[in-house]
Amino acid sequence: MPRSMKRASKKAGLPPGALIHIGEKKTEKVKITLIEYDEGKFQEKEIKNIDELIPFNGKPPVKWINIEGLHDVEMIGKIGKHFNLHPLTLEDILNTGQRPKSDDFDDYTYIVFKMLRYEEKEQEVRSEQVSLIIGSDFLISFQEMAGDVFESVRNRIRNGKGRIRRLSGDYLAYTLMDAVVDHYFLILEIFGEKIEFLEDEILENPTPRALESIYEMRGEMIYLRRQVWPVREILSRLEKGASPFIQESTGMYLRDIYDHTIQVMDTIESFRDILAGLLDIYLSTISNKMNEVMKVLTIIATLFIPITFVAGVYGMNFKYMPELDWRWGYFAVWLVMIAVAVIMLFFFRKKRWL
Amino acid sequence: MPRSMKRASKKAGLPPGALIHIGEKKTEKVKITLIEYDEGKFQEKEIKNIDELIPFNGKPPVKWINIEGLHDVEMIGKIGKHFNLHPLTLEDILNTGQRPKSDDFDDYTYIVFKMLRYEEKEQEVRSEQVSLIIGSDFLISFQEMAGDVFESVRNRIRNGKGRIRRLSGDYLAYTLMDAVVDHYFLILEIFGEKIEFLEDEILENPTPRALESIYEMRGEMIYLRRQVWPVREILSRLEKGASPFIQESTGMYLRDIYDHTIQVMDTIESFRDILAGLLDIYLSTISNKMNEVMKVLTIIATLFIPITFVAGVYGMNFKYMPELDWRWGYFAVWLVMIAVAVIMLFFFRKKRWL
Amino acid sequence: MPRSMKRASKKAGLPPGALIHIGEKKTEKVKITLIEYDEGKFQEKEIKNIDELIPFNGKPPVKWINIEGLHDVEMIGKIGKHFNLHPLTLEDILNTGQRPKSDDFDDYTYIVFKMLRYEEKEQEVRSEQVSLIIGSDFLISFQEMAGDVFESVRNRIRNGKGRIRRLSGDYLAYTLMDAVVDHYFLILEIFGEKIEFLEDEILENPTPRALESIYEMRGEMIYLRRQVWPVREILSRLEKGASPFIQESTGMYLRDIYDHTIQVMDTIESFRDILAGLLDIYLSTISNKMNEVMKVLTIIATLFIPITFVAGVYGMNFKYMPELDWRWGYFAVWLVMIAVAVIMLFFFRKKRWL
Amino acid sequence: MPRSMKRASKKAGLPPGALIHIGEKKTEKVKITLIEYDEGKFQEKEIKNIDELIPFNGKPPVKWINIEGLHDVEMIGKIGKHFNLHPLTLEDILNTGQRPKSDDFDDYTYIVFKMLRYEEKEQEVRSEQVSLIIGSDFLISFQEMAGDVFESVRNRIRNGKGRIRRLSGDYLAYTLMDAVVDHYFLILEIFGEKIEFLEDEILENPTPRALESIYEMRGEMIYLRRQVWPVREILSRLEKGASPFIQESTGMYLRDIYDHTIQVMDTIESFRDILAGLLDIYLSTISNKMNEVMKVLTIIATLFIPITFVAGVYGMNFKYMPELDWRWGYFAVWLVMIAVAVIMLFFFRKKRWL
Amino acid sequence: MPRSMKRASKKAGLPPGALIHIGEKKTEKVKITLIEYDEGKFQEKEIKNIDELIPFNGKPPVKWINIEGLHDVEMIGKIGKHFNLHPLTLEDILNTGQRPKSDDFDDYTYIVFKMLRYEEKEQEVRSEQVSLIIGSDFLISFQEMAGDVFESVRNRIRNGKGRIRRLSGDYLAYTLMDAVVDHYFLILEIFGEKIEFLEDEILENPTPRALESIYEMRGEMIYLRRQVWPVREILSRLEKGASPFIQESTGMYLRDIYDHTIQVMDTIESFRDILAGLLDIYLSTISNKMNEVMKVLTIIATLFIPITFVAGVYGMNFKYMPELDWRWGYFAVWLVMIAVAVIMLFFFRKKRWL
Repeated sequence: MPRSMKRASKKAGLPPGALIHIGEKKTEKVKITLIEYDEGKFQEKEIKNIDELIPFNGKPPVKWINIEGLHDVEMIGKIGKHFNLHPLTLEDILNTGQRPKSDDFDDYTYIVFKMLRYEEKEQEVRSEQVSLIIGSDFLISFQEMAGDVFESVRNRIRNGKGRIRRLSGDYLAYTLMDAVVDHYFLILEIFGEKIEFLEDEILENPTPRALESIYEMRGEMIYLRRQVWPVREILSRLEKGASPFIQESTGMYLRDIYDHTIQVMDTIESFRDILAGLLDIYLSTISNKMNEVMKVLTIIATLFIPITFVAGVYGMNFKYMPELDWRWGYFAVWLVMIAVAVIMLFFFRKKRWL
Repeated sequence: MPRSMKRASKKAGLPPGALIHIGEKKTEKVKITLIEYDEGKFQEKEIKNIDELIPFNGKPPVKWINIEGLHDVEMIGKIGKHFNLHPLTLEDILNTGQRPKSDDFDDYTYIVFKMLRYEEKEQEVRSEQVSLIIGSDFLISFQEMAGDVFESVRNRIRNGKGRIRRLSGDYLAYTLMDAVVDHYFLILEIFGEKIEFLEDEILENPTPRALESIYEMRGEMIYLRRQVWPVREILSRLEKGASPFIQESTGMYLRDIYDHTIQVMDTIESFRDILAGLLDIYLSTISNKMNEVMKVLTIIATLFIPITFVAGVYGMNFKYMPELDWRWGYFAVWLVMIAVAVIMLFFFRKKRWL
Repeated sequence: MPRSMKRASKKAGLPPGALIHIGEKKTEKVKITLIEYDEGKFQEKEIKNIDELIPFNGKPPVKWINIEGLHDVEMIGKIGKHFNLHPLTLEDILNTGQRPKSDDFDDYTYIVFKMLRYEEKEQEVRSEQVSLIIGSDFLISFQEMAGDVFESVRNRIRNGKGRIRRLSGDYLAYTLMDAVVDHYFLILEIFGEKIEFLEDEILENPTPRALESIYEMRGEMIYLRRQVWPVREILSRLEKGASPFIQESTGMYLRDIYDHTIQVMDTIESFRDILAGLLDIYLSTISNKMNEVMKVLTIIATLFIPITFVAGVYGMNFKYMPELDWRWGYFAVWLVMIAVAVIMLFFFRKKRWL
Repeated sequence: MPRSMKRASKKAGLPPGALIHIGEKKTEKVKITLIEYDEGKFQEKEIKNIDELIPFNGKPPVKWINIEGLHDVEMIGKIGKHFNLHPLTLEDILNTGQRPKSDDFDDYTYIVFKMLRYEEKEQEVRSEQVSLIIGSDFLISFQEMAGDVFESVRNRIRNGKGRIRRLSGDYLAYTLMDAVVDHYFLILEIFGEKIEFLEDEILENPTPRALESIYEMRGEMIYLRRQVWPVREILSRLEKGASPFIQESTGMYLRDIYDHTIQVMDTIESFRDILAGLLDIYLSTISNKMNEVMKVLTIIATLFIPITFVAGVYGMNFKYMPELDWRWGYFAVWLVMIAVAVIMLFFFRKKRWL
Repeated sequence: MPRSMKRASKKAGLPPGALIHIGEKKTEKVKITLIEYDEGKFQEKEIKNIDELIPFNGKPPVKWINIEGLHDVEMIGKIGKHFNLHPLTLEDILNTGQRPKSDDFDDYTYIVFKMLRYEEKEQEVRSEQVSLIIGSDFLISFQEMAGDVFESVRNRIRNGKGRIRRLSGDYLAYTLMDAVVDHYFLILEIFGEKIEFLEDEILENPTPRALESIYEMRGEMIYLRRQVWPVREILSRLEKGASPFIQESTGMYLRDIYDHTIQVMDTIESFRDILAGLLDIYLSTISNKMNEVMKVLTIIATLFIPITFVAGVYGMNFKYMPELDWRWGYFAVWLVMIAVAVIMLFFFRKKRWL
């Protein structure tokens, strides 16, 4: 079972909306970054204390507050208070076992989904929950820890090239989601390569380890599907104009990611089908091997058992056994045994066992 | 088959709406508790006789009547009469084999679902039917027996902290449902741990007992799904404002539980997928083991059968067997036998059986 | 294949609406009963000749004509003519291979479904087609043979207690359907017990007979699902007010049966899942048994084959075999053979075969 | 793969609407029949030359032109021209690999579906494409070859009895479709009997031939489903009044065939389920047989291998083997061997192998 | 895994709408062809430089610009600029891993799908992405490389026969899509033949290679389904008039291709079902073969093991073994051994192993 499928349930028994961080504490220090930009201006700074943000004035068109680390509940409470976030939103931000979803509130739209990254070193997929608060003049993103897939977005903002500096905060939100979904493809490619590798292994020399790999990959696919499928719903809702904080012109871009998530789903389903096929191959290859083992045993046994019997007969110590005294008895017995063996071999050939 | 999947059918043949308690009698004494509160006041008392409740005046905003034990049909009839409950509602309350559902009547909304608890001692999941009657100025909850998952809710009311004391009866109903759904996660976590344990067991040393565990877990998942799936429908209906007794502001909270039930469903489906995968692993591990057994047998048999034949040949008692008189015949035979064995071993190695 | 899954097709080639009884003739004599009642009056009589009914006056509010036996085509034609039934309706009544459905006509609503009863003696489920004609002032029910699940309904009418005498013919129709659906639960309970029995049998000592039972039960589930699923649709339509002959107040009761049919469907699906699981258990238990057999064979064979070879070697008759003349040769060989056997046993223990 | 599943693709590369007959040429001569009737009149004649039809006057209410044989492209082009048929319609009529569908044009409604007949002699299902053109005052039917399931319809028209002579062309179209769907039941009945036969065979003595039968039947079911499923859609559309050439009063009859096609689908699905079950039975019966074979081998081998070893030991030729000189040595060895065999038999009995 | 299932992900990290060619570079030189025609005129020329097209005047009614080769990003950028294509459209054209889809923009409708061709020489299916830009007075098609399935369309335009010259650009677009979908049938026919070949092979002599073929075909079916399914959606949208650039009269033709894609889907699903059936056949044939092998082994072993034991007994060297001195002992032993063998053979016959 993929590690990421587990869900902490510390919350049971607490009032709804209680602020408790549920999930692994993945970073030591909470880091807050503020990026402010419009077509002409650009400013990027790290916020040491959340109070620096407050009073928050919405003058330059786009303000992106990025928060890495969720365990400082008090600070997140402050942010929530300042930006007028609903208690349920705060609860959802802090609970890292969320199913991807979007909720519309009076002052903002809340989107939560999973960012997946492949850690080359550990050879495993890391899952991190990302929450977006899209307001009329700000975008807040919450991550579980330092490091993300947004560096390219930041570079585009810094360079000031392209559409991004000309457009508003909802386009930035789209860009972030796009970066996340693009990384889903990367993950799928890595799985694709693993599956191909597995394919070769199973067709050539299937081992129980390959079976375990199939099983693990299946689990990963189940997990991925659970993470990607609801993203489709989110995008479908937003594209249809569910949120007042997303401009109509951004809809076309959202439709583009929507198409991408469908493609991701398609690929996941295909991988599942392929893995099911690999399991069939594996199982029947095992059967085939057993068959081959049995054939060897049967050939050797049925070849030698009858002639061993013949030898046994003439090993008996009866007083009166006429054959034993024959001059060519011994050679005759050899001929008989060879004849039996040759007949057997013909029989095997006819059965296509040889 | 999980015990809880059975349904008593004592009712067949009775008129619809007949008041008969169907199900196990799980408690000796019916216990009725009344909690009355608003933002300022709070009162909690046990009701000895149902007549104490009547005349019932709806003055303090929230009145929660909790009834534990369903076998006192007469008393429930009285309550039904006083609160003007429809005969079908009473029948449903008493029949503990209900599928979760909600029905809207003129004077109240009726919701029925299952409360699941894990009994640490007996190592099993206990299922109990909970019925909620949400009226304009009261909330009645019916349980099958003493003990529930609502203690934390009661504590929050007693402490007077948080939203609960400020809000009305429909919010209380939400809180109860939330507590129940939160416990579904607890149950799933326990199953998750069991599945992981099973996973390790099957990968290391699969026993028929593991197979039975898979089968039982599957049954439990089937049962869980049957209980959770309709809860989704209930919440979806209520959230969309189907009931006049649930305020619009509570809708947002109901949507939150709705999201949780979807997550529960997702997890159940994932567990089912994982269990199916485990079964595959189990079956093919069994196959692999058989394969290994067969290989050992085949190696030993094909190694010794031919040389045993050779020994048999020279155990024959023919008068004229020239080899027997050779000086080095015995050693030559040993050489032949060793050669045969070595060739066989090479053959096995080539086949990768060794 | 359950006997009940077959469909006679005598009709092919006949004009639509042709009156021909398709199905087994299950009773000798057609029996017609008329029950007339309102809150005050009650009359029950057997009708010898269909003409007694005609002229039919609709004065007392509820008239229930129950017909047992369908092979008297002429009589049914008369009824059809008198009550102005559409030719397709008559054809459907007579063709006992109908899929449950409801049709609305100008003068009546036609409902057809299956009544299932468990015959204790024959240990099998009996299926009988029931057609209801709900008119403005009458209810006609057609059954294939004598004996039904409506006796409790009749008793309630006779006793004059409860709602039934106060309400109109559509409520009576509901009561009849309710009685039928309640019996579905009875059938499911019997199957549930059979499945549990099967479960124990398969876990303890799986026999091919158990496999056949699984197969048969599966067939029964397929049949049941086919009968119950369309009933759901019928009730859904009627509850939504599709028929002018069903009063709005009866809708709530129909919704109740609707919920019951969903529960029946749920249970059928669960049983199917459980049966699939039992098949897996069965198959893998068979595999396990084979495995065990193979192990015993392998242990015995690999234990004795090598030492039998040793014995064979010293049974050779070579002139010059130095060991044969050694004083302790025989005992040395015994030691060798015991050593080989002990090593083998250690090997088996390591492999966990012992 | 059922022969009928193949689709010729001669057309690829041709313009849409190109008139080319795709499919087997199943008849030598094209035969055209014209039946004209109303309540009073009736005329039936064979048309030698398509020009006889033209000028076509629509005076008697119903004109049914039936064409058997599709390879005379030129003639069909003429008909198309005269009746103003759309090029796509003509293309569809000629291409016998159509999926059943209906299309509405300004002057007519086009319906295409498959007629299935069981050829007793060849023991196989024959599939033939039927196209219907329903105009305001005519009905044209195209068949691939002579012979159809419409003879009973023709007889009813000839006899002048029943509704058919009183009603218009759309009722005739319905009657033809009804005849086709009724024949689906006949086909299903034949399959039902085959499945029962197969069932008995597999339960008693499963052979690889039975496996092939399952596989073939499965293919037939896949084919049938593909042919019947779209008919459902056609009828659903027509019943809802999609075509102006079908009167509202015919809708009730169409609904009747609609119900029949659903029943056909139900039966096909049930058969598929049953065939899947039969495959399981087959496979596990094979497993059981293997098991039994293995048991016999194991019993014989484990019974004799140890005692053969004992015999081998005393066949050794050591000079000093004290047992050989004992007076009762031989009998003692027999006792030992019998004891070993008896112990083995007890062991087998305990394992329930005997 | 079919090669075509892989998706390059060079793009991750780039801004949305970035112009980068993703996919194999399949042709050396980009080739641009312009075909201009109306009912009277026709002109076809190769464009060396994209600037020749600009200024582009839309006078003759239909202009078809066909571009083969996608790696010249700059040129495609120019085209995009001239025809006012949205950046996302250009990105989609260049990214050859698109899921088939259609998007409507103010100035054009964008359609992307896969063209499949079977390369006789390499015995494999080639997939190529085709993008169509349907404007009010032009049609642009982008292909990955030279060679397509459109030659027959070009010929029809050149010949000036048929509807195509009389109708506008959207009909041309339809014709191109029709050509592509018609080729899907060709591909399916080739697969159909392969499956039949496989069927025969598996029924006669199943080899592991056949298993690999099943697995590969399954992968191809998964791939095909992924490519065809979304085409259905595209056509459904366009037929319903989603695009202002497609005239209503073309809708009927689009519905025709729509029906064809459904038929393609049906066939793919049938092939999947058939392949699943073939796998079952394969697996159980393997089982059957194993069974047969086991039977031979068991027959030979159980026939000779007992009589070899008998021979072993009389090979013992006990001093006192009365039988050895009997005159007919040897012959008696032969009789015993033959009797044992005959009994065994009867037993096998009873078990139907012979």
